[in-house]
Amino acid sequence: MTTIGQSRIAADDEDISVEELRLAARNHGMPLEALRYDVTPAGLHYLLIHYDIPDTADWSLDVLGRKWTLDELRALPAVTEQVTLECAGNGRAKLHPRPVSQPWLDEAVGCAAWTGTPLAPLLADLPPDAVDVVFTGLDHGLDRGVEQDYQRALPVAEALRPDVLLAYEMNGQPLLPQHGAPLRLVVPGWYGMTHVKWLGSITALDRPFDGFQQAVAYRITHEPDDEGTPVTRMLPKALMAPPGFPDFMTRQRFVDAGRVVLTGRAWSGHAPVAKVEVELDGTWVEAELGPAGDRYAWRRWECAWDATPGEHVLRVRATDADGLTQPLDQPWNRQGMANNTAQRVPVTVRP
Amino acid sequence: MTTIGQSRIAADDEDISVEELRLAARNHGMPLEALRYDVTPAGLHYLLIHYDIPDTADWSLDVLGRKWTLDELRALPAVTEQVTLECAGNGRAKLHPRPVSQPWLDEAVGCAAWTGTPLAPLLADLPPDAVDVVFTGLDHGLDRGVEQDYQRALPVAEALRPDVLLAYEMNGQPLLPQHGAPLRLVVPGWYGMTHVKWLGSITALDRPFDGFQQAVAYRITHEPDDEGTPVTRMLPKALMAPPGFPDFMTRQRFVDAGRVVLTGRAWSGHAPVAKVEVELDGTWVEAELGPAGDRYAWRRWECAWDATPGEHVLRVRATDADGLTQPLDQPWNRQGMANNTAQRVPVTVRP
Repeated sequence: MTTIGQSRIAADDEDISVEELRLAARNHGMPLEALRYDVTPAGLHYLLIHYDIPDTADWSLDVLGRKWTLDELRALPAVTEQVTLECAGNGRAKLHPRPVSQPWLDEAVGCAAWTGTPLAPLLADLPPDAVDVVFTGLDHGLDRGVEQDYQRALPVAEALRPDVLLAYEMNGQPLLPQHGAPLRLVVPGWYGMTHVKWLGSITALDRPFDGFQQAVAYRITHEPDDEGTPVTRMLPKALMAPPGFPDFMTRQRFVDAGRVVLTGRAWSGHAPVAKVEVELDGTWVEAELGPAGDRYAWRRWECAWDATPGEHVLRVRATDADGLTQPLDQPWNRQGMANNTAQRVPVTVRP
Repeated sequence: MTTIGQSRIAADDEDISVEELRLAARNHGMPLEALRYDVTPAGLHYLLIHYDIPDTADWSLDVLGRKWTLDELRALPAVTEQVTLECAGNGRAKLHPRPVSQPWLDEAVGCAAWTGTPLAPLLADLPPDAVDVVFTGLDHGLDRGVEQDYQRALPVAEALRPDVLLAYEMNGQPLLPQHGAPLRLVVPGWYGMTHVKWLGSITALDRPFDGFQQAVAYRITHEPDDEGTPVTRMLPKALMAPPGFPDFMTRQRFVDAGRVVLTGRAWSGHAPVAKVEVELDGTWVEAELGPAGDRYAWRRWECAWDATPGEHVLRVRATDADGLTQPLDQPWNRQGMANNTAQRVPVTVRP
């Protein structure tokens, strides 16, 4: 592995380091067959915990200097929203050369029903000169030599969106420790790094926030000294539940010849999903979309395939109402961020 | 990677293959800070799903030819037991050379409160010549060329133990899909492969079961054509919650100098835990054990450490009432099974 500027690039394009494995054994993706569920069951939703799950005994939330207990927040108006979260680093391990960090393939996603109270009313006393609202988690550690509590910020206009929640329940149950108990931020449409877990305080800044996770990490950069552009909303993406059954070790899929109904989910943080296409034996076919649910929930799609014996590679891509779509060839960036290249699913069809 | 006989050995001792990464991104361990919980919260318990989580609509259980619905099983006497489960392959990725399969480091463990009905009364009609009781799951796939439903067997005497459960709840909630919903087997004291998930049928055999997961997989072997010995009960093991806070990428730990209380859990499937020792700067110190809980639940331990500035490697090992203990140097076997070598925790102490 070589370290250049703020990024680490794998020296070898194929093999994964023990450090990456250690992260993969802790931070798990969603098994892709769980695309069958409208709402991802507890424990199947992807997880990225930067440091350790903190001990949150004696928790309270400080908002602009005012302390809130969980009971006080629960007494405020409650809203439930179904929201898809995807890690900004999803797909990183498919890049060549591979940026070295959490080594996601396709699976860093999930869609939960989040219940909480809207943030905006708690920000009524925001100073008039506020530029960014900073969210500080209780998780603490080192990243590239910088000791820190996990912190991310939102521009004021984004923080005041009516659908931004302080969430204390996931799928009708109190937040689990690994999902930020007792309280996390939910910012529908944005990549996962935004939804600060184990939220401890909310402060205002009269200038753009320049903390590590904002100014250094979570940026699209191409050169070692390139400041780059920040990662914000989720690019459109469709995923397929791999059909048939797998081989244990390779995860290669096996299907019997005949009609196979391919299904999956699609989402975009920019605009509603407008179209999903599946590549079947070289031809892109438009999939049928399921009912549109909550604005930032994923949408089901399905597409019939006449599977003929032999080796096949299926692909799928989503296009949203803004016309954003998924590339077929992988663009690259140093941190391996926001890779929404179309998923490839190799399938062996048996006679 | 080379394939010899029934095992696959990594050609390179250091780097992990993309196939292993794909398994690690699906099947997750328990983050070691979760050793703080007596009962592992939902979603933090380790998972090994051989194939896909099956669709279990229209489920029923066939026991020796008699069909049972979930409601019928729930109407039978219910028992709740706190039981530690560890994957038989835990620690595999620490072996040299590394057997290629699910690449666990230390984290493939959890301790849940399982609720279900005892199995023995449902086996009242077991044929007198029965030797093995075979448990068939609904998960289906290929392993080393053999297409199969996941199947494991127990000798009759073990299957009739009063604490063997057909479990439908975990931590007071209906089983989650990834933990075998609606029903799984729980065999306290045995490694995880025994606790068949998505249980579909129970049959009797008048001879030892020779299915793939019994006769080929889950065996301690040393030579390519060695039939080996089956993996059964969990060997003693202690794990430490790594102290202090981590670096994101390396997971290296940082602690401030002074008194640090080290804590963790210990278990054995053979006999109750009798002793836990922690190696502090070259000296093995006996840890204080917490209260003994359910027979097959893990037991808390703690040990104070006077941390002095510099680099340290802590180790911990458990000994059970049968006198079984943990090796300090790694023994090796071809499948990477039952590795209970003492955990090593490198720690940087800051002045």
